[in-house]
Amino acid sequence: MLNPSDYPALSALAAVLRHGSFDAAAHALSVTPSAISQRIKALEERMGTPLVLRGTPAQGTETGRRLARHMDEIGILEAQLAHDLGQNDGPALRVPLAVNADSLATWFPPAMANLPEMLFQLTLDDQDHSADWLKRGEVMAAVSARDTAVPGCDLHPLGALRYLAVATPAFVARHFPEGITSEALSKAPSLVFNGKDRLQDNWVSSQTGRRIALPAHRIPSTQGFVDAALTGIGWGLNPEVLLHPHLEAGRLVPLSPAPTDIALYWHVSRLAAPILAPLTAAVRQAARTALIS
Amino acid sequence: MLNPSDYPALSALAAVLRHGSFDAAAHALSVTPSAISQRIKALEERMGTPLVLRGTPAQGTETGRRLARHMDEIGILEAQLAHDLGQNDGPALRVPLAVNADSLATWFPPAMANLPEMLFQLTLDDQDHSADWLKRGEVMAAVSARDTAVPGCDLHPLGALRYLAVATPAFVARHFPEGITSEALSKAPSLVFNGKDRLQDNWVSSQTGRRIALPAHRIPSTQGFVDAALTGIGWGLNPEVLLHPHLEAGRLVPLSPAPTDIALYWHVSRLAAPILAPLTAAVRQAARTALIS
Repeated sequence: MLNPSDYPALSALAAVLRHGSFDAAAHALSVTPSAISQRIKALEERMGTPLVLRGTPAQGTETGRRLARHMDEIGILEAQLAHDLGQNDGPALRVPLAVNADSLATWFPPAMANLPEMLFQLTLDDQDHSADWLKRGEVMAAVSARDTAVPGCDLHPLGALRYLAVATPAFVARHFPEGITSEALSKAPSLVFNGKDRLQDNWVSSQTGRRIALPAHRIPSTQGFVDAALTGIGWGLNPEVLLHPHLEAGRLVPLSPAPTDIALYWHVSRLAAPILAPLTAAVRQAARTALIS
Repeated sequence: MLNPSDYPALSALAAVLRHGSFDAAAHALSVTPSAISQRIKALEERMGTPLVLRGTPAQGTETGRRLARHMDEIGILEAQLAHDLGQNDGPALRVPLAVNADSLATWFPPAMANLPEMLFQLTLDDQDHSADWLKRGEVMAAVSARDTAVPGCDLHPLGALRYLAVATPAFVARHFPEGITSEALSKAPSLVFNGKDRLQDNWVSSQTGRRIALPAHRIPSTQGFVDAALTGIGWGLNPEVLLHPHLEAGRLVPLSPAPTDIALYWHVSRLAAPILAPLTAAVRQAARTALIS
Protein backbone atom coordinates (compact mmCIF):
# COMPACT_ATOMS: atom_id res chain seq x y z
CA MET A 1 0.00 0.00 0.00
CA LEU A 2 2.77 2.44 0.92
CA ASN A 3 5.86 3.20 -1.14
CA PRO A 4 9.18 4.15 0.44
CA SER A 5 8.76 7.50 -1.30
CA ASP A 6 5.64 8.12 0.82
CA TYR A 7 7.65 8.37 4.04
CA PRO A 8 8.55 12.08 3.85
CA ALA A 9 4.83 12.82 3.47
CA LEU A 10 3.98 10.44 6.33
CA SER A 11 6.51 12.21 8.50
CA ALA A 12 4.92 15.57 7.59
CA LEU A 13 1.48 14.17 8.43
CA ALA A 14 2.63 12.84 11.83
CA ALA A 15 4.24 16.22 12.63
CA VAL A 16 1.06 18.14 11.73
CA LEU A 17 -1.08 15.91 13.98
CA ARG A 18 1.49 16.07 16.79
CA HIS A 19 1.93 19.85 16.70
CA GLY A 20 -1.59 20.83 15.63
CA SER A 21 -0.65 23.12 12.72
CA PHE A 22 1.17 23.15 9.37
CA ASP A 23 3.37 26.02 10.58
CA ALA A 24 4.49 24.23 13.73
CA ALA A 25 5.12 21.00 11.78
CA ALA A 26 7.20 22.92 9.22
CA HIS A 27 9.18 24.46 12.07
CA ALA A 28 9.79 21.10 13.74
CA LEU A 29 10.94 19.46 10.47
CA SER A 30 12.91 22.55 9.33
CA VAL A 31 11.06 22.84 6.02
CA THR A 32 8.59 25.46 4.72
CA PRO A 33 4.86 25.23 5.52
CA SER A 34 4.18 24.98 1.80
CA ALA A 35 6.43 21.89 1.57
CA ILE A 36 4.40 20.31 4.38
CA SER A 37 1.16 21.22 2.65
CA GLN A 38 2.26 19.87 -0.75
CA ARG A 39 3.48 16.57 0.69
CA ILE A 40 0.26 15.98 2.57
CA LYS A 41 -1.87 16.96 -0.41
CA ALA A 42 0.04 14.51 -2.63
CA LEU A 43 -0.40 11.75 -0.06
CA GLU A 44 -4.12 12.51 0.23
CA GLU A 45 -4.41 12.18 -3.56
CA ARG A 46 -2.45 8.91 -3.49
CA MET A 47 -4.63 7.51 -0.67
CA GLY A 48 -7.82 8.86 -2.22
CA THR A 49 -9.08 10.24 1.09
CA PRO A 50 -8.52 13.34 3.24
CA LEU A 51 -5.97 12.81 6.03
CA VAL A 52 -6.07 16.14 7.88
CA LEU A 53 -9.05 18.21 8.99
CA ARG A 54 -7.76 21.76 8.54
CA GLY A 55 -8.69 23.69 11.67
CA THR A 56 -7.27 25.04 14.91
CA PRO A 57 -5.76 22.69 15.93
CA ALA A 58 -5.39 20.61 12.75
CA GLN A 59 -6.72 17.11 13.45
CA GLY A 60 -6.40 13.78 11.71
CA THR A 61 -9.15 11.92 9.91
CA GLU A 62 -9.46 8.26 10.90
CA THR A 63 -7.10 7.25 8.09
CA GLY A 64 -4.75 10.13 8.90
CA ARG A 65 -4.53 9.10 12.55
CA ARG A 66 -3.89 5.48 11.59
CA LEU A 67 -1.05 6.53 9.29
CA ALA A 68 0.47 8.73 12.02
CA ARG A 69 0.31 5.76 14.39
CA HIS A 70 2.22 3.72 11.80
CA MET A 71 4.98 6.36 11.98
CA ASP A 72 5.01 6.10 15.78
CA GLU A 73 5.42 2.33 15.51
CA ILE A 74 8.29 2.80 13.08
CA GLY A 75 9.84 5.20 15.60
CA ILE A 76 9.78 2.41 18.19
CA LEU A 77 11.47 -0.02 15.78
CA GLU A 78 14.11 2.59 14.86
CA ALA A 79 14.82 3.29 18.53
CA GLN A 80 15.15 -0.46 19.18
CA LEU A 81 17.52 -0.69 16.19
CA ALA A 82 19.68 2.19 17.43
CA HIS A 83 19.79 0.57 20.87
CA ASP A 84 20.82 -2.83 19.45
CA LEU A 85 23.52 -1.24 17.26
CA GLY A 86 24.81 0.75 20.24
CA GLN A 87 23.94 4.03 18.54
CA ASN A 88 21.86 5.79 21.13
CA ASP A 89 22.82 9.31 20.13
CA GLY A 90 19.90 9.66 17.71
CA PRO A 91 16.82 11.72 18.43
CA ALA A 92 15.18 10.85 21.74
CA LEU A 93 12.31 8.34 21.71
CA ARG A 94 8.87 9.94 21.98
CA VAL A 95 6.92 7.86 24.50
CA PRO A 96 3.15 8.51 24.48
CA LEU A 97 1.59 7.35 27.77
CA ALA A 98 -1.89 7.50 29.28
CA VAL A 99 -1.76 8.07 33.03
CA ASN A 100 -4.62 8.67 35.43
CA ALA A 101 -4.45 12.16 36.92
CA ASP A 102 -4.31 10.92 40.51
CA SER A 103 -1.23 8.80 39.74
CA LEU A 104 0.53 11.74 38.09
CA ALA A 105 -0.30 13.84 41.16
CA THR A 106 1.06 11.28 43.62
CA TRP A 107 3.49 8.44 42.86
CA PHE A 108 4.17 8.54 39.08
CA PRO A 109 6.67 11.41 38.47
CA PRO A 110 9.77 9.66 39.96
CA ALA A 111 9.24 6.85 37.42
CA MET A 112 10.09 9.32 34.63
CA ALA A 113 13.41 10.38 36.18
CA ASN A 114 16.78 9.12 34.88
CA LEU A 115 15.52 7.99 31.46
CA PRO A 116 17.13 10.73 29.31
CA GLU A 117 16.57 8.81 26.06
CA MET A 118 12.78 9.21 26.44
CA LEU A 119 10.54 12.23 25.83
CA PHE A 120 7.29 11.54 27.68
CA GLN A 121 4.02 12.58 26.03
CA LEU A 122 1.39 12.24 28.73
CA THR A 123 -2.36 12.05 28.22
CA LEU A 124 -4.48 12.21 31.37
CA ASP A 125 -7.66 10.21 31.73
CA ASP A 126 -9.74 8.52 34.39
CA GLN A 127 -8.21 5.29 35.76
CA ASP A 128 -11.19 3.40 34.33
CA HIS A 129 -10.56 4.79 30.83
CA SER A 130 -6.79 5.32 30.48
CA ALA A 131 -6.34 1.80 29.02
CA ASP A 132 -8.72 2.75 26.18
CA TRP A 133 -5.94 4.94 24.75
CA LEU A 134 -3.77 1.84 24.52
CA LYS A 135 -6.59 -0.17 22.94
CA ARG A 136 -6.91 2.53 20.29
CA GLY A 137 -3.14 2.39 19.72
CA GLU A 138 -2.67 6.05 20.67
CA VAL A 139 -0.19 5.39 23.48
CA MET A 140 2.56 2.80 24.11
CA ALA A 141 1.63 2.16 27.73
CA ALA A 142 -0.93 3.16 30.36
CA VAL A 143 -1.54 3.30 34.10
CA SER A 144 -5.10 2.07 34.56
CA ALA A 145 -7.52 0.33 36.92
CA ARG A 146 -8.32 -2.17 34.11
CA ASP A 147 -7.37 -5.58 35.52
CA THR A 148 -7.40 -7.60 32.28
CA ALA A 149 -4.79 -7.37 29.54
CA VAL A 150 -5.53 -5.20 26.50
CA PRO A 151 -5.08 -7.37 23.35
CA GLY A 152 -1.44 -7.27 22.25
CA CYS A 153 -0.31 -5.81 25.58
CA ASP A 154 1.35 -7.01 28.79
CA LEU A 155 -0.13 -6.36 32.23
CA HIS A 156 1.80 -5.65 35.46
CA PRO A 157 -0.08 -5.24 38.79
CA LEU A 158 1.20 -2.14 40.61
CA GLY A 159 -0.65 -2.11 43.94
CA ALA A 160 -3.46 0.19 45.04
CA LEU A 161 -3.88 3.94 45.47
CA ARG A 162 -5.72 4.69 48.73
CA TYR A 163 -8.54 7.26 48.83
CA LEU A 164 -10.50 8.89 51.63
CA ALA A 165 -13.85 10.68 51.31
CA VAL A 166 -13.32 14.09 52.95
CA ALA A 167 -14.81 17.54 53.46
CA THR A 168 -14.21 20.50 55.75
CA PRO A 169 -15.54 20.22 59.32
CA ALA A 170 -17.93 23.13 58.57
CA PHE A 171 -19.25 21.31 55.49
CA VAL A 172 -19.86 18.13 57.50
CA ALA A 173 -21.60 20.06 60.29
CA ARG A 174 -23.84 21.83 57.80
CA HIS A 175 -24.69 19.01 55.38
CA PHE A 176 -24.33 15.85 57.49
CA PRO A 177 -25.61 16.80 60.97
CA GLU A 178 -27.21 13.36 61.25
CA GLY A 179 -24.42 11.41 59.59
CA ILE A 180 -23.97 10.14 56.03
CA THR A 181 -27.64 9.53 55.23
CA SER A 182 -29.13 9.00 51.77
CA GLU A 183 -31.24 12.12 52.26
CA ALA A 184 -28.19 14.25 53.11
CA LEU A 185 -26.11 12.82 50.23
CA SER A 186 -28.84 13.69 47.75
CA LYS A 187 -28.52 17.38 48.72
CA ALA A 188 -24.86 17.94 49.75
CA PRO A 189 -22.72 19.08 46.79
CA SER A 190 -20.13 16.45 45.86
CA LEU A 191 -16.96 16.83 43.81
CA VAL A 192 -16.44 14.72 40.69
CA PHE A 193 -13.37 14.82 38.47
CA ASN A 194 -15.32 14.65 35.20
CA GLY A 195 -18.24 12.86 33.58
CA LYS A 196 -16.40 9.52 33.67
CA ASP A 197 -15.55 9.62 37.38
CA ARG A 198 -17.56 7.00 39.27
CA LEU A 199 -15.50 7.07 42.52
CA GLN A 200 -18.01 9.12 44.50
CA ASP A 201 -21.01 7.18 43.12
CA ASN A 202 -19.39 3.86 44.01
CA TRP A 203 -18.52 5.10 47.50
CA VAL A 204 -22.13 6.19 48.06
CA SER A 205 -23.39 2.79 46.91
CA SER A 206 -21.01 1.04 49.30
CA GLN A 207 -22.06 3.31 52.19
CA THR A 208 -25.82 3.29 51.64
CA GLY A 209 -26.50 0.27 49.44
CA ARG A 210 -28.31 2.63 47.06
CA ARG A 211 -27.64 4.64 43.93
CA ILE A 212 -28.23 8.32 44.62
CA ALA A 213 -28.13 11.16 42.05
CA LEU A 214 -25.44 13.39 43.60
CA PRO A 215 -25.40 17.14 43.03
CA ALA A 216 -21.84 17.69 41.83
CA HIS A 217 -19.17 20.22 41.02
CA ARG A 218 -16.85 19.07 38.24
CA ILE A 219 -13.17 19.83 38.92
CA PRO A 220 -10.93 18.03 36.42
CA SER A 221 -7.64 18.39 38.34
CA THR A 222 -6.35 16.29 41.26
CA GLN A 223 -4.82 19.23 43.10
CA GLY A 224 -7.84 21.38 42.20
CA PHE A 225 -10.04 18.67 43.70
CA VAL A 226 -8.22 18.91 47.04
CA ASP A 227 -8.25 22.71 46.86
CA ALA A 228 -11.99 22.70 46.11
CA ALA A 229 -12.61 20.46 49.14
CA LEU A 230 -10.54 22.91 51.23
CA THR A 231 -12.75 25.86 50.14
CA GLY A 232 -15.72 23.96 51.56
CA ILE A 233 -17.77 23.74 48.36
CA GLY A 234 -18.14 19.95 48.36
CA TRP A 235 -17.08 16.51 49.55
CA GLY A 236 -15.11 14.01 47.47
CA LEU A 237 -12.65 11.12 47.42
CA ASN A 238 -9.00 12.23 47.34
CA PRO A 239 -5.73 10.27 47.36
CA GLU A 240 -4.81 9.87 51.03
CA VAL A 241 -1.18 10.97 50.50
CA LEU A 242 -2.37 14.42 49.42
CA LEU A 243 -4.57 14.75 52.52
CA HIS A 244 -2.09 14.14 55.37
CA PRO A 245 -1.25 17.80 56.16
CA HIS A 246 -4.92 18.82 55.88
CA LEU A 247 -6.16 15.94 58.06
CA GLU A 248 -3.49 16.63 60.67
CA ALA A 249 -4.32 20.35 60.75
CA GLY A 250 -8.04 19.53 60.94
CA ARG A 251 -8.82 21.47 57.73
CA LEU A 252 -10.42 18.32 56.28
CA VAL A 253 -12.09 15.39 58.04
CA PRO A 254 -12.99 11.92 56.71
CA LEU A 255 -16.68 11.20 56.14
CA SER A 256 -15.95 7.56 57.02
CA PRO A 257 -12.79 6.05 58.54
CA ALA A 258 -12.71 3.23 55.96
CA PRO A 259 -10.46 3.99 52.98
CA THR A 260 -11.21 3.04 49.37
CA ASP A 261 -8.33 1.24 47.62
CA ILE A 262 -8.17 1.37 43.81
CA ALA A 263 -5.87 -1.29 42.31
CA LEU A 264 -3.74 -0.01 39.43
CA TYR A 265 -2.01 -1.83 36.57
CA TRP A 266 0.75 -0.97 34.10
CA HIS A 267 -0.34 -1.94 30.59
CA VAL A 268 2.37 -1.90 27.93
CA SER A 269 2.17 -2.65 24.21
CA ARG A 270 4.19 -5.79 23.33
CA LEU A 271 5.66 -4.00 20.31
CA ALA A 272 7.04 -1.29 22.60
CA ALA A 273 7.79 -3.54 25.62
CA PRO A 274 11.49 -4.18 24.82
CA ILE A 275 12.36 -0.52 24.29
CA LEU A 276 10.23 0.53 27.29
CA ALA A 277 11.74 -2.11 29.63
CA PRO A 278 13.68 0.51 31.67
CA LEU A 279 10.48 2.56 32.10
CA THR A 280 8.50 -0.52 33.13
CA ALA A 281 11.15 -1.27 35.77
CA ALA A 282 11.03 2.35 37.02
CA VAL A 283 7.21 2.40 37.12
CA ARG A 284 7.12 -0.85 39.13
CA GLN A 285 9.77 0.48 41.50
CA ALA A 286 7.93 3.79 42.05
CA ALA A 287 4.67 1.90 42.62
CA ARG A 288 6.30 -0.48 45.13
CA THR A 289 7.49 2.53 47.13
CA ALA A 290 4.21 4.45 47.12
CA LEU A 291 1.22 2.16 46.58
CA ILE A 292 -0.52 -0.26 48.94
CA SER A 293 0.46 -3.85 48.10
CA MET B 1 -39.33 25.26 15.73
CA LEU B 2 -39.77 23.81 19.22
CA ASN B 3 -43.08 23.01 20.93
CA PRO B 4 -43.53 23.20 24.69
CA SER B 5 -44.14 19.46 24.53
CA ASP B 6 -40.56 19.00 23.30
CA TYR B 7 -39.07 20.11 26.62
CA PRO B 8 -39.12 16.75 28.43
CA ALA B 9 -37.19 15.29 25.49
CA LEU B 10 -34.79 18.26 25.48
CA SER B 11 -34.19 17.75 29.17
CA ALA B 12 -33.46 14.04 28.51
CA LEU B 13 -31.06 15.01 25.72
CA ALA B 14 -29.20 17.51 27.91
CA ALA B 15 -28.92 14.90 30.68
CA VAL B 16 -27.50 12.27 28.30
CA LEU B 17 -24.86 14.69 26.98
CA ARG B 18 -24.01 15.86 30.51
CA HIS B 19 -23.71 12.37 32.03
CA GLY B 20 -22.43 10.52 28.98
CA SER B 21 -24.91 7.64 29.00
CA PHE B 22 -28.64 6.88 28.80
CA ASP B 23 -28.43 4.96 32.09
CA ALA B 24 -26.82 7.81 33.99
CA ALA B 25 -29.28 10.32 32.50
CA ALA B 26 -32.21 8.10 33.51
CA HIS B 27 -30.78 7.88 37.01
CA ALA B 28 -30.34 11.66 37.26
CA LEU B 29 -33.89 12.36 36.04
CA SER B 30 -35.42 9.47 38.04
CA VAL B 31 -37.01 7.84 34.99
CA THR B 32 -36.22 4.57 33.17
CA PRO B 33 -33.49 4.38 30.50
CA SER B 34 -36.16 3.31 28.02
CA ALA B 35 -38.13 6.52 28.72
CA ILE B 36 -34.96 8.52 27.99
CA SER B 37 -34.37 6.56 24.81
CA GLN B 38 -37.95 6.94 23.58
CA ARG B 39 -38.03 10.69 24.22
CA ILE B 40 -34.78 11.27 22.37
CA LYS B 41 -35.81 9.05 19.48
CA ALA B 42 -39.10 10.95 19.11
CA LEU B 43 -37.22 14.27 19.17
CA GLU B 44 -34.74 13.00 16.56
CA GLU B 45 -37.69 12.06 14.33
CA ARG B 46 -39.30 15.47 14.91
CA MET B 47 -36.04 17.29 14.10
CA GLY B 48 -35.24 14.96 11.19
CA THR B 49 -31.63 14.51 12.28
CA PRO B 50 -29.70 12.40 14.80
CA LEU B 51 -28.99 14.21 18.07
CA VAL B 52 -26.88 11.69 20.00
CA LEU B 53 -23.95 9.56 18.81
CA ARG B 54 -24.47 6.32 20.77
CA GLY B 55 -21.09 5.35 22.20
CA THR B 56 -19.06 5.41 25.40
CA PRO B 57 -19.49 8.17 26.36
CA ALA B 58 -22.61 9.15 24.40
CA GLN B 59 -21.86 12.42 22.58
CA GLY B 60 -24.01 15.03 20.89
CA THR B 61 -24.21 15.70 17.19
CA GLU B 62 -23.83 19.37 16.26
CA THR B 63 -27.62 19.84 16.43
CA GLY B 64 -27.81 17.80 19.64
CA ARG B 65 -25.16 19.97 21.33
CA ARG B 66 -26.91 23.15 20.19
CA LEU B 67 -30.20 21.94 21.67
CA ALA B 68 -28.50 21.02 24.96
CA ARG B 69 -26.99 24.52 25.07
CA HIS B 70 -30.50 25.94 24.66
CA MET B 71 -31.48 24.02 27.81
CA ASP B 72 -28.47 25.47 29.65
CA GLU B 73 -29.57 28.98 28.64
CA ILE B 74 -33.07 28.28 29.88
CA GLY B 75 -31.51 27.11 33.14
CA ILE B 76 -29.87 30.53 33.49
CA LEU B 77 -33.17 32.31 32.89
CA GLU B 78 -34.97 30.06 35.39
CA ALA B 79 -32.30 30.68 38.02
CA GLN B 80 -32.59 34.44 37.42
CA LEU B 81 -36.38 34.13 37.74
CA ALA B 82 -36.11 32.20 41.02
CA HIS B 83 -33.69 34.83 42.31
CA ASP B 84 -35.99 37.73 41.33
CA LEU B 85 -39.00 36.02 42.94
CA GLY B 86 -36.99 35.33 46.09
CA GLN B 87 -37.33 31.56 45.60
CA ASN B 88 -33.75 30.37 45.80
CA ASP B 89 -34.51 26.95 47.21
CA GLY B 90 -34.78 25.33 43.79
CA PRO B 91 -32.11 23.09 42.32
CA ALA B 92 -28.65 24.68 42.34
CA LEU B 93 -27.50 26.50 39.21
CA ARG B 94 -25.05 24.50 37.06
CA VAL B 95 -22.27 26.92 36.10
CA PRO B 96 -20.03 25.67 33.26
CA LEU B 97 -16.70 27.54 33.31
CA ALA B 98 -13.47 27.28 31.30
CA VAL B 99 -10.43 27.97 33.47
CA ASN B 100 -6.77 27.68 32.55
CA ALA B 101 -5.09 24.92 34.56
CA ASP B 102 -2.47 27.25 36.08
CA SER B 103 -5.22 29.50 37.51
CA LEU B 104 -7.05 26.53 39.02
CA ALA B 105 -3.74 25.41 40.55
CA THR B 106 -2.99 28.82 42.07
CA TRP B 107 -5.46 31.64 42.74
CA PHE B 108 -8.87 30.46 41.43
CA PRO B 109 -10.29 28.02 44.04
CA PRO B 110 -11.14 30.65 46.71
CA ALA B 111 -13.37 32.39 44.13
CA MET B 112 -15.68 29.33 44.21
CA ALA B 113 -16.13 29.41 47.99
CA ASN B 114 -19.30 30.74 49.64
CA LEU B 115 -21.53 30.50 46.56
CA PRO B 116 -23.69 27.53 47.64
CA GLU B 117 -26.34 28.19 44.97
CA MET B 118 -23.82 27.29 42.22
CA LEU B 119 -22.52 23.89 41.07
CA PHE B 120 -19.30 24.58 39.16
CA GLN B 121 -18.60 22.50 36.03
CA LEU B 122 -14.98 23.25 35.17
CA THR B 123 -13.28 22.62 31.85
CA LEU B 124 -9.52 23.11 31.78
CA ASP B 125 -7.74 24.55 28.75
CA ASP B 126 -4.72 26.61 27.87
CA GLN B 127 -5.04 30.32 28.77
CA ASP B 128 -4.82 31.12 25.05
CA HIS B 129 -7.75 28.82 24.24
CA SER B 130 -10.07 28.86 27.27
CA ALA B 131 -12.11 31.75 25.78
CA ASP B 132 -12.87 29.55 22.73
CA TRP B 133 -15.22 27.53 24.95
CA LEU B 134 -17.17 30.72 25.60
CA LYS B 135 -17.17 31.60 21.90
CA ARG B 136 -18.67 28.19 21.16
CA GLY B 137 -21.30 28.79 23.85
CA GLU B 138 -20.19 25.76 25.89
CA VAL B 139 -19.46 27.71 29.09
CA MET B 140 -20.96 30.78 30.80
CA ALA B 141 -17.62 32.37 31.66
CA ALA B 142 -13.88 31.83 31.23
CA VAL B 143 -10.50 32.81 32.67
CA SER B 144 -8.32 33.48 29.64
CA ALA B 145 -5.34 35.43 28.32
CA ARG B 146 -7.55 36.74 25.48
CA ASP B 147 -7.55 40.53 25.86
CA THR B 148 -10.47 41.37 23.58
CA ALA B 149 -14.13 40.74 24.37
CA VAL B 150 -15.77 37.63 22.94
CA PRO B 151 -18.94 38.72 21.02
CA GLY B 152 -21.88 38.88 23.44
CA CYS B 153 -19.59 38.79 26.48
CA ASP B 154 -18.17 41.20 29.05
CA LEU B 155 -14.44 41.45 29.78
CA HIS B 156 -12.84 42.13 33.18
CA PRO B 157 -9.03 42.49 33.48
CA LEU B 158 -7.77 40.40 36.42
CA GLY B 159 -4.02 41.13 36.60
CA ALA B 160 -1.15 38.84 35.63
CA LEU B 161 0.08 35.42 36.70
CA ARG B 162 3.88 35.43 37.10
CA TYR B 163 5.99 32.59 35.69
CA LEU B 164 9.65 31.64 36.05
CA ALA B 165 11.60 29.28 33.76
CA VAL B 166 13.19 26.72 36.09
CA ALA B 167 15.04 23.40 36.24
CA THR B 168 17.05 21.48 38.82
CA PRO B 169 20.64 22.65 39.45
CA ALA B 170 21.89 19.29 38.07
CA PHE B 171 19.85 19.78 34.88
CA VAL B 172 21.26 23.29 34.39
CA ALA B 173 24.83 22.07 35.00
CA ARG B 174 24.41 19.26 32.51
CA HIS B 175 22.46 20.97 29.73
CA PHE B 176 23.40 24.64 30.06
CA PRO B 177 27.10 24.65 31.08
CA GLU B 178 27.66 27.68 28.84
CA GLY B 179 24.39 29.42 29.63
CA ILE B 180 21.06 29.57 27.80
CA THR B 181 22.39 29.26 24.24
CA SER B 182 20.36 28.39 21.13
CA GLU B 183 22.50 25.28 20.68
CA ALA B 184 21.82 24.09 24.25
CA LEU B 185 18.08 24.87 24.01
CA SER B 186 17.76 22.78 20.83
CA LYS B 187 18.99 19.71 22.78
CA ALA B 188 17.85 20.13 26.41
CA PRO B 189 14.43 18.51 27.02
CA SER B 190 11.78 21.09 27.81
CA LEU B 191 8.38 20.64 29.44
CA VAL B 192 5.22 21.70 27.64
CA PHE B 193 1.70 21.42 29.01
CA ASN B 194 0.14 20.20 25.76
CA GLY B 195 0.20 20.84 22.03
CA LYS B 196 -1.32 24.31 22.48
CA ASP B 197 1.18 25.54 25.07
CA ARG B 198 3.40 28.26 23.57
CA LEU B 199 4.85 29.57 26.87
CA GLN B 200 8.24 27.86 26.50
CA ASP B 201 8.49 28.72 22.77
CA ASN B 202 7.72 32.37 23.47
CA TRP B 203 10.24 32.49 26.31
CA VAL B 204 12.93 31.02 24.03
CA SER B 205 12.14 33.61 21.35
CA SER B 206 12.40 36.41 23.91
CA GLN B 207 15.72 35.04 25.22
CA THR B 208 17.42 34.25 21.93
CA GLY B 209 15.53 36.26 19.31
CA ARG B 210 15.03 32.99 17.41
CA ARG B 211 12.47 30.22 17.04
CA ILE B 212 13.98 26.90 18.09
CA ALA B 213 12.35 23.45 17.77
CA LEU B 214 12.44 22.35 21.42
CA PRO B 215 12.60 18.66 22.36
CA ALA B 216 9.72 18.38 24.80
CA HIS B 217 7.97 16.21 27.34
CA ARG B 218 4.22 16.79 27.45
CA ILE B 219 2.82 16.92 30.99
CA PRO B 220 -0.78 18.19 30.97
CA SER B 221 -1.06 19.03 34.70
CA THR B 222 0.19 22.13 36.53
CA GLN B 223 1.30 20.22 39.63
CA GLY B 224 2.67 17.42 37.41
CA PHE B 225 4.67 20.06 35.54
CA VAL B 226 6.35 21.21 38.77
CA ASP B 227 6.88 17.60 39.86
CA ALA B 228 8.40 16.74 36.46
CA ALA B 229 10.81 19.68 36.77
CA LEU B 230 11.75 18.41 40.27
CA THR B 231 12.62 14.94 38.89
CA GLY B 232 15.14 16.64 36.59
CA ILE B 233 13.68 15.50 33.27
CA GLY B 234 13.24 18.96 31.76
CA TRP B 235 13.00 22.75 32.12
CA GLY B 236 9.77 24.74 31.87
CA LEU B 237 7.85 27.84 32.92
CA ASN B 238 5.91 27.40 36.15
CA PRO B 239 3.73 29.79 38.18
CA GLU B 240 6.10 31.49 40.63
CA VAL B 241 3.78 30.93 43.64
CA LEU B 242 4.17 27.15 43.23
CA LEU B 243 7.98 27.46 43.13
CA HIS B 244 8.75 29.35 46.36
CA PRO B 245 9.52 26.34 48.59
CA HIS B 246 11.58 24.67 45.83
CA LEU B 247 13.54 27.84 45.00
CA GLU B 248 14.24 28.49 48.69
CA ALA B 249 15.42 24.90 49.23
CA GLY B 250 17.56 25.08 46.08
CA ARG B 251 15.74 22.14 44.46
CA LEU B 252 14.95 24.33 41.44
CA VAL B 253 16.81 27.34 40.04
CA PRO B 254 15.65 29.99 37.55
CA LEU B 255 17.17 29.86 34.06
CA SER B 256 16.84 33.64 33.94
CA PRO B 257 16.04 36.09 36.75
CA ALA B 258 13.43 37.91 34.63
CA PRO B 259 9.88 36.63 35.20
CA THR B 260 7.24 36.24 32.47
CA ASP B 261 3.88 37.84 33.34
CA ILE B 262 0.75 36.54 31.60
CA ALA B 263 -2.22 38.93 31.86
CA LEU B 264 -5.53 37.20 32.52
CA TYR B 265 -9.14 38.28 31.91
CA TRP B 266 -12.54 37.17 33.16
CA HIS B 267 -14.90 36.77 30.21
CA VAL B 268 -18.57 36.36 31.07
CA SER B 269 -21.57 35.83 28.79
CA ARG B 270 -23.96 38.82 28.97
CA LEU B 271 -26.92 36.45 29.23
CA ALA B 272 -25.40 34.88 32.33
CA ALA B 273 -23.78 38.05 33.75
CA PRO B 274 -26.65 39.03 36.11
CA ILE B 275 -26.96 35.60 37.72
CA LEU B 276 -23.15 35.23 37.84
CA ALA B 277 -22.58 38.68 39.38
CA PRO B 278 -21.60 37.22 42.81
CA LEU B 279 -19.09 34.90 41.10
CA THR B 280 -17.65 37.75 39.04
CA ALA B 281 -17.17 39.75 42.26
CA ALA B 282 -15.49 36.76 43.95
CA VAL B 283 -13.22 36.09 40.94
CA ARG B 284 -12.11 39.74 40.84
CA GLN B 285 -11.49 39.70 44.59
CA ALA B 286 -9.42 36.48 44.44
CA ALA B 287 -7.43 37.86 41.50
CA ARG B 288 -6.76 41.16 43.33
CA THR B 289 -5.30 39.18 46.23
CA ALA B 290 -3.10 36.83 44.20
CA LEU B 291 -2.25 38.28 40.78
CA ILE B 292 0.24 41.00 39.80
CA SER B 293 -1.60 44.24 39.02
